[in-house]
Amino acid sequence: MSGGVFVTDLRVRFADVDNAGIVYYPRFFHFFHVAMEELFEREFGKNYPDVIGVDHVGFPAVHTEADYRMPVRYGDRPHIRVSCVRIGGKSVTLRYRVTRPADGAEFAEGRITTACVDMRTFTPMEVPPAYREFFSRFLES
Amino acid sequence: MSGGVFVTDLRVRFADVDNAGIVYYPRFFHFFHVAMEELFEREFGKNYPDVIGVDHVGFPAVHTEADYRMPVRYGDRPHIRVSCVRIGGKSVTLRYRVTRPADGAEFAEGRITTACVDMRTFTPMEVPPAYREFFSRFLES
Amino acid sequence: MSGGVFVTDLRVRFADVDNAGIVYYPRFFHFFHVAMEELFEREFGKNYPDVIGVDHVGFPAVHTEADYRMPVRYGDRPHIRVSCVRIGGKSVTLRYRVTRPADGAEFAEGRITTACVDMRTFTPMEVPPAYREFFSRFLES
Amino acid sequence: MSGGVFVTDLRVRFADVDNAGIVYYPRFFHFFHVAMEELFEREFGKNYPDVIGVDHVGFPAVHTEADYRMPVRYGDRPHIRVSCVRIGGKSVTLRYRVTRPADGAEFAEGRITTACVDMRTFTPMEVPPAYREFFSRFLES
Repeated sequence: MSGGVFVTDLRVRFADVDNAGIVYYPRFFHFFHVAMEELFEREFGKNYPDVIGVDHVGFPAVHTEADYRMPVRYGDRPHIRVSCVRIGGKSVTLRYRVTRPADGAEFAEGRITTACVDMRTFTPMEVPPAYREFFSRFLES
Repeated sequence: MSGGVFVTDLRVRFADVDNAGIVYYPRFFHFFHVAMEELFEREFGKNYPDVIGVDHVGFPAVHTEADYRMPVRYGDRPHIRVSCVRIGGKSVTLRYRVTRPADGAEFAEGRITTACVDMRTFTPMEVPPAYREFFSRFLES
Repeated sequence: MSGGVFVTDLRVRFADVDNAGIVYYPRFFHFFHVAMEELFEREFGKNYPDVIGVDHVGFPAVHTEADYRMPVRYGDRPHIRVSCVRIGGKSVTLRYRVTRPADGAEFAEGRITTACVDMRTFTPMEVPPAYREFFSRFLES
Repeated sequence: MSGGVFVTDLRVRFADVDNAGIVYYPRFFHFFHVAMEELFEREFGKNYPDVIGVDHVGFPAVHTEADYRMPVRYGDRPHIRVSCVRIGGKSVTLRYRVTRPADGAEFAEGRITTACVDMRTFTPMEVPPAYREFFSRFLES
């Protein structure tokens, strides 16, 4: 099964906004990381602290990209929609779309390529089968 | 004159490091923004608060990209080297290279494309001549 | 009616942890602010963006205090328990207790005294009746 | 010798400001931590990464307090003035005054009591002699 999209709510907090009155652009990458943490917790059946601390598997970013289309302001409550662009041997690329619930209009979109690493040595490793299967549920067709 | 590179020091702070013991990847985009603020202050003769508040010119990000090659740890003191990739009619792309002073090895590299906007209306505007001239000093050949 | 306590969940995120592997102590004050935003949203019937942007009422901190009793680590899921210590003429003091759900043990406790200000002028104002009534529901006996 | 005051510059960054256009109050505690890191680096002859990683000594906060007297805005360039309130057997209290260079007016003041801990076990320890001597240089009379 593939084609799934994980949707989570984003509450823009007082501190997320910068001197220009809009969400500070680096903050989106934090939102993406939080969305990934929630993806694991709600869909993988193992939260990210256990992924790292028990399975000793981690997914540090090696390449990131984002496009910003509309400013997000305090009080906005976008969705973040997570899907999987690619599952490589030792890497995974996730897509994060920040959308307006009313009409689906896109505030921003990010693509994060992560290496799969053994957290005890911080060296690359093959994406373990259970993780591969998990990400494949969200693989874009 | 072009080809200039603006170099600034990065002091990694206690809070920049995440649960994995390395700099949290979204944090690099904050470092890039700080480097841009320093670029204006030290090389433009007008600090970014005045760029925004007096000239009413701003440079919000519309596209960001970064590659992460080596983890940065607490106690590391990289350089950030800023140059200009492209000056468009209403946009500017800057490159930020995070390097190890000892040997120039690259920890990370980011490219941030910003729109030039009138901060009173948040609408796109032509890059004003003084800014265009400024960025051109750092234009990559 | 008084004596109420507002309880909200705190999810410790990857970035909340510092180089020592525990939640960075300034971060607790951010957690307290988020808890206050949630208090308004869920209990006041008006979210904090509207409190500020529509009612033009704000509650900037004028005095803060916190005690840290046990480190909070990544994966911990404390409660934050909010109550009201004092409602003055132009100020409000809230207490935030960060507790372990299993046994109620306290990780940390903060007390934040805020001025009530007119956000259009940033000058002190009397706590409006509807706000006074709201905070009094959580007033400690 | 006592009575010293360590003075460092604070550059308010674009992201330090919140939705109200002033520095987000939890951010001051981050500024205080950065000032402590600079205090060690410039005055102790050993930077904080080495204090922690080589000496295995750390100073986690156990009690914090701050008073906020005037808002700090983007473009402000306050001083932070660090002195030592008290050196206990296993604790140290530092004071951080955020002042306006032009007239010494105080934006904010914080007092942070830290435990001295062995970072390998995170258990309290006596403040080592070299550290005690160091802090005593900044002890308020």
